[in-house]
Amino acid sequence: MSERTYNVAIVGATGAVGQNIKQLLEQKDFPINELRLLSSKRSAGTKTTLHGKEIIIQEATPEQFETIDIAFFSAGGSVTKQLAESAIERGAIVIDNTSAFRMDENVPLIVPEVNAHALEQHEGLIANPNCSTIQMVVALQPILKQFGLTNVIVSTYQAVSGAGLSAVEELRTQIDQYLKGEEMEANLLPVAADEKHYPIAFNALPQIDVFEANGYTAEEMKMINETKKIMEQPNLSVAATCVRLPVVTSHSESVFIEVEKDGVSVDDLKDVLRKAPGIVLQDDIQTQTYPTPLEATGKEEVFIGRIRQDLHNDRGFHLWVVSDNLMKGAALNTVQIAETLIEKQII
Amino acid sequence: MSERTYNVAIVGATGAVGQNIKQLLEQKDFPINELRLLSSKRSAGTKTTLHGKEIIIQEATPEQFETIDIAFFSAGGSVTKQLAESAIERGAIVIDNTSAFRMDENVPLIVPEVNAHALEQHEGLIANPNCSTIQMVVALQPILKQFGLTNVIVSTYQAVSGAGLSAVEELRTQIDQYLKGEEMEANLLPVAADEKHYPIAFNALPQIDVFEANGYTAEEMKMINETKKIMEQPNLSVAATCVRLPVVTSHSESVFIEVEKDGVSVDDLKDVLRKAPGIVLQDDIQTQTYPTPLEATGKEEVFIGRIRQDLHNDRGFHLWVVSDNLMKGAALNTVQIAETLIEKQII
Repeated sequence: MSERTYNVAIVGATGAVGQNIKQLLEQKDFPINELRLLSSKRSAGTKTTLHGKEIIIQEATPEQFETIDIAFFSAGGSVTKQLAESAIERGAIVIDNTSAFRMDENVPLIVPEVNAHALEQHEGLIANPNCSTIQMVVALQPILKQFGLTNVIVSTYQAVSGAGLSAVEELRTQIDQYLKGEEMEANLLPVAADEKHYPIAFNALPQIDVFEANGYTAEEMKMINETKKIMEQPNLSVAATCVRLPVVTSHSESVFIEVEKDGVSVDDLKDVLRKAPGIVLQDDIQTQTYPTPLEATGKEEVFIGRIRQDLHNDRGFHLWVVSDNLMKGAALNTVQIAETLIEKQII
Repeated sequence: MSERTYNVAIVGATGAVGQNIKQLLEQKDFPINELRLLSSKRSAGTKTTLHGKEIIIQEATPEQFETIDIAFFSAGGSVTKQLAESAIERGAIVIDNTSAFRMDENVPLIVPEVNAHALEQHEGLIANPNCSTIQMVVALQPILKQFGLTNVIVSTYQAVSGAGLSAVEELRTQIDQYLKGEEMEANLLPVAADEKHYPIAFNALPQIDVFEANGYTAEEMKMINETKKIMEQPNLSVAATCVRLPVVTSHSESVFIEVEKDGVSVDDLKDVLRKAPGIVLQDDIQTQTYPTPLEATGKEEVFIGRIRQDLHNDRGFHLWVVSDNLMKGAALNTVQIAETLIEKQII
């Protein structure tokens, strides 16, 4: 990295992802000149520290973006729509964690291991993809590059923390109720704003986010559309079924892929994935080695195992892909986008 | 049913499935003349009742099968291998819950809704399929019959009770340890006899049963091979990824299918499934209606929802299939096989 330092803002600094971004900037010694932590009026005034120095969280207003170089947004789509333009006008590059602009054709949707080059085309706003999409494209990109890819069918096993800390609390309360033989109360999942709520404890809910008219959930459509955009494969066949589980952190994915090239072996796939950025191969049936969400939690990489050839389709393979949804799935990828902007001297 | 009554034996009467079989026979007023409950020498002497009448559980020996018409075996494959022949020689029809003879070409593998006709070819031994296979073939058979079927790719979400009551206890203990901030102890899952054990609480384990040389688990190979045998589709392309979850009862399955016929719609599929035996359609995105394992528990049917067309493949569809693994997945299907033998006057 260069010697230059940057003025950085985090909008949504009191939220889970905002706090994780601050922590990662600190851990990674991100070259910060000034860190401005911004929030809603209600949370303004809260105090925190960066490298031991006190910072008071302030209300996010357009004026707060004066002299800011990089602004991380993670306060919901409406806040991005309201304030991102003010930040960009004042010269900041906005890295947005919400889904508000992800599919906008003028907005690069970035996973640095996959499409860092698309950063060059930015017009001030850069979008961070959906958690379940990020870990899948990290796994698929090296395969696409080496062998081509024609078909992807994924079934997800997603953690409750993806729905926020209050959903994790609800899981704990429900477990307690279940073990006491009481009826479980459900108020948040699958979607807080939706009509019906189901308990998540000891359950599996085949709905993440609201339903769209075509019968898919918004989460499933995010995986389908974002994957094609990030991998620059508009004609790739992608299908997704997204399921929420009583797991606290880390999403798992059962992924079926069809490669374009004939004669590819499991060893070929393993060789490519072993050398690929951001991936840890955990695949040895002799020692029962495969990734699990508990073991992936707190780690930065995407973990891949259970790689095997389809028994009927020589170009078909099955993979098990696990990653921490709060790390690579959210804050970490956002920070890596900022690091890549610096590395590529775009900022 | 006929007026005739039958002498019935349950081998493994003190186990979970054996107890469920006895309970179902009682609930369904199965036409029993005499019920002989058999177990290992160790458990012999235990007392239970049938319709209020005391029965003492006795040691399973070849002689115990004298005059028996129907013998349910659920005491492990080795017991079936040891005693089934003695029962058959004495004139009993054996319905076996273990995997010992399922793929034997002289043994019908039966799900009554799917292939009751195959019972006619029995030679004394009839096998009950694997739990995750049963619920899937109940869902797929009406589709196969009406539209043809070329491809099935399933990812499972399986309950801990499939690994026995001690695994459910281990889940409870681990939850307790986790919530107290203690390290979780794992001694049973994924496979008690295997080297390595992982916690199941707040986790997802992509291993059910031991690994085979081809990289698939025995559970995955059961789903693949048994599905082809039961549906009599030796060339059907079937792939499975089997995953254990912190769910107590009921297995869920995310199933991708490709039908043979062109022009099939989601409504066509729903119409066929709505009328099919053993199925309850729970599919309405307007009211967030779809099956969940918690709601399916204790029920007899296979529940299907989230039916939607693939966005790239007109002959591709996605389904979410849920059923109680201890009911239709085990004891209930076994008892239904016996009922079908009577209905068809095979016995």
